Amino acid sequence: MGEFELIRRYFLPVSEAGQHPAVLLGPGDDCAIQRVGEGQDLVFSVDTLVEGVHFPEHYSPEKLGWRSLAVAASDLAAMGADPVCFTLALTLPQADPDWLANFSSGLSSASRSFGLNLAGGDITRGPLALTLQVHGTVPVDSAIRRSGAKPGDLICVSGTLGNAAAALALLDLEFPTTEQVELLEHYHAPQPQLLLGRALRGSASAAIDVSDGLVADLTHLLGASGVAGAIDVGCLPLSGALAAQREDAINLALYGGDDYQLCVTIADTALKALPDAIRKQLTAVGRVRTGAGLVVDGGSAQAQPGGYDHFGSE
Amino acid sequence: MGEFELIRRYFLPVSEAGQHPAVLLGPGDDCAIQRVGEGQDLVFSVDTLVEGVHFPEHYSPEKLGWRSLAVAASDLAAMGADPVCFTLALTLPQADPDWLANFSSGLSSASRSFGLNLAGGDITRGPLALTLQVHGTVPVDSAIRRSGAKPGDLICVSGTLGNAAAALALLDLEFPTTEQVELLEHYHAPQPQLLLGRALRGSASAAIDVSDGLVADLTHLLGASGVAGAIDVGCLPLSGALAAQREDAINLALYGGDDYQLCVTIADTALKALPDAIRKQLTAVGRVRTGAGLVVDGGSAQAQPGGYDHFGSE
Repeated sequence: MGEFELIRRYFLPVSEAGQHPAVLLGPGDDCAIQRVGEGQDLVFSVDTLVEGVHFPEHYSPEKLGWRSLAVAASDLAAMGADPVCFTLALTLPQADPDWLANFSSGLSSASRSFGLNLAGGDITRGPLALTLQVHGTVPVDSAIRRSGAKPGDLICVSGTLGNAAAALALLDLEFPTTEQVELLEHYHAPQPQLLLGRALRGSASAAIDVSDGLVADLTHLLGASGVAGAIDVGCLPLSGALAAQREDAINLALYGGDDYQLCVTIADTALKALPDAIRKQLTAVGRVRTGAGLVVDGGSAQAQPGGYDHFGSE
Repeated sequence: MGEFELIRRYFLPVSEAGQHPAVLLGPGDDCAIQRVGEGQDLVFSVDTLVEGVHFPEHYSPEKLGWRSLAVAASDLAAMGADPVCFTLALTLPQADPDWLANFSSGLSSASRSFGLNLAGGDITRGPLALTLQVHGTVPVDSAIRRSGAKPGDLICVSGTLGNAAAALALLDLEFPTTEQVELLEHYHAPQPQLLLGRALRGSASAAIDVSDGLVADLTHLLGASGVAGAIDVGCLPLSGALAAQREDAINLALYGGDDYQLCVTIADTALKALPDAIRKQLTAVGRVRTGAGLVVDGGSAQAQPGGYDHFGSE
């Protein structure tokens, strides 16, 4: 199968499944074309997933299709952006029709679910790896940056934390229990918080998505904002499944990655002014302070094990 | 060296070297932000280069830095776009400071030379591969697409063809001659035709960059336009170095890839109306006809060896 036949069979259907009116020209030319409306800015982010590093070898191609776009879309959520489109650079060891059909199916589902139109890409031969770039828009000057946290703001997180990290130990189970399946879903099918991020535009002072672990990501946010923060582990939102299965649930919630929830800072008044349905999705876990560094239950978190750093072991 | 230190040391300098006012927020947040001016559309393209597939093993990191951005920028040239910025997703087997410093230096040179600002990226551990996405802008509805060729248009190419393909046989020479060095430069340091592409906006009816070989790329253009074409090999522009060194220069010019020149279609009147300095950069090699397929010197080119197709051998 040639590269063009492969694109026609497995990737044009993805592009057609998730059409977006702002994509004026999709795959097939030297470039794609996106219209960015008047008064809007383009926001974009690129993420690479490598087999054996970011996902297990022989991982389900359907889950990989979903997960790779979810991981990338989570960065749009953290900026409060409206999703528009994405590109996919796929490196494959061989063109296996079954693998491609299942990957295409998972990617199509994610594309429709997140409102991200496949606008272009590249397919090359090599060790399995994917690079996705997602595009969104925000009204001019309204993106939620990492750098806006102010002393006195609440530190809030969405959803529950630590589930995906707990799932890592369960990936090879042949017959997982119902509670284990619940944890596994957090790893296999993360839900980028696009609607929540958008709803927090203009209210949150700063945001980051929790991809490397709460302590690691919140530390980045505080550093970018030039402030300190303190969190209370008693406030960390844990799922029933995690609390029931892992004695170290708190540690997983603090240091485990792959959750793709949002961590935001927001003034008390701004939080109170949010619609109930939005406010209910957030749990306050701490507060921004003057200074530098992150304090967890009164002790410095800086020296504790951080999130995953691909080059950190050298 | 951690991922963040690696970015700070080797990639922030690249970003600072090529600043562009439309990049409102560069590397360091969840997303980058680009302002797309009123009346402008965003055009973008993604390209992956894998070691051992798109460039030789142990290839010079400085040359790789230049070449990878040049290859990507060539797609902007083919749309007639004004360059703005790019993202880099880099997968590395290890963090070698010498390699990184040289790569960063080559990438900085290309960034400044092409006017493309490094706006974001991702660094992961794995087999050496690079994915670059380039962003440009065009006035609304003025991108040069592949699909606009009209019967009667001239088929023109820029520069000379076949040099990079000839260079492939010379890559391992320890002491190349002056003429061999000239050919090698075409492979190592291709020059994306950004100024020419922009100058042809509103004049050329269709364009594509010659990355896979003239016959392969022109065939794509003709197919997208729903027309046929005929080229006369006697008209193919050859460099003196190529003509002197290779008896099969014509074949290399027809089928060799990696030239990153432009192939455009343009009406005679539009060509005559171009400024001398622009028109001189183009050589007419054939003409667009009604029908389908590409004829080379009176014979069908369709069944002849095509350009490089990564999945074509299966």
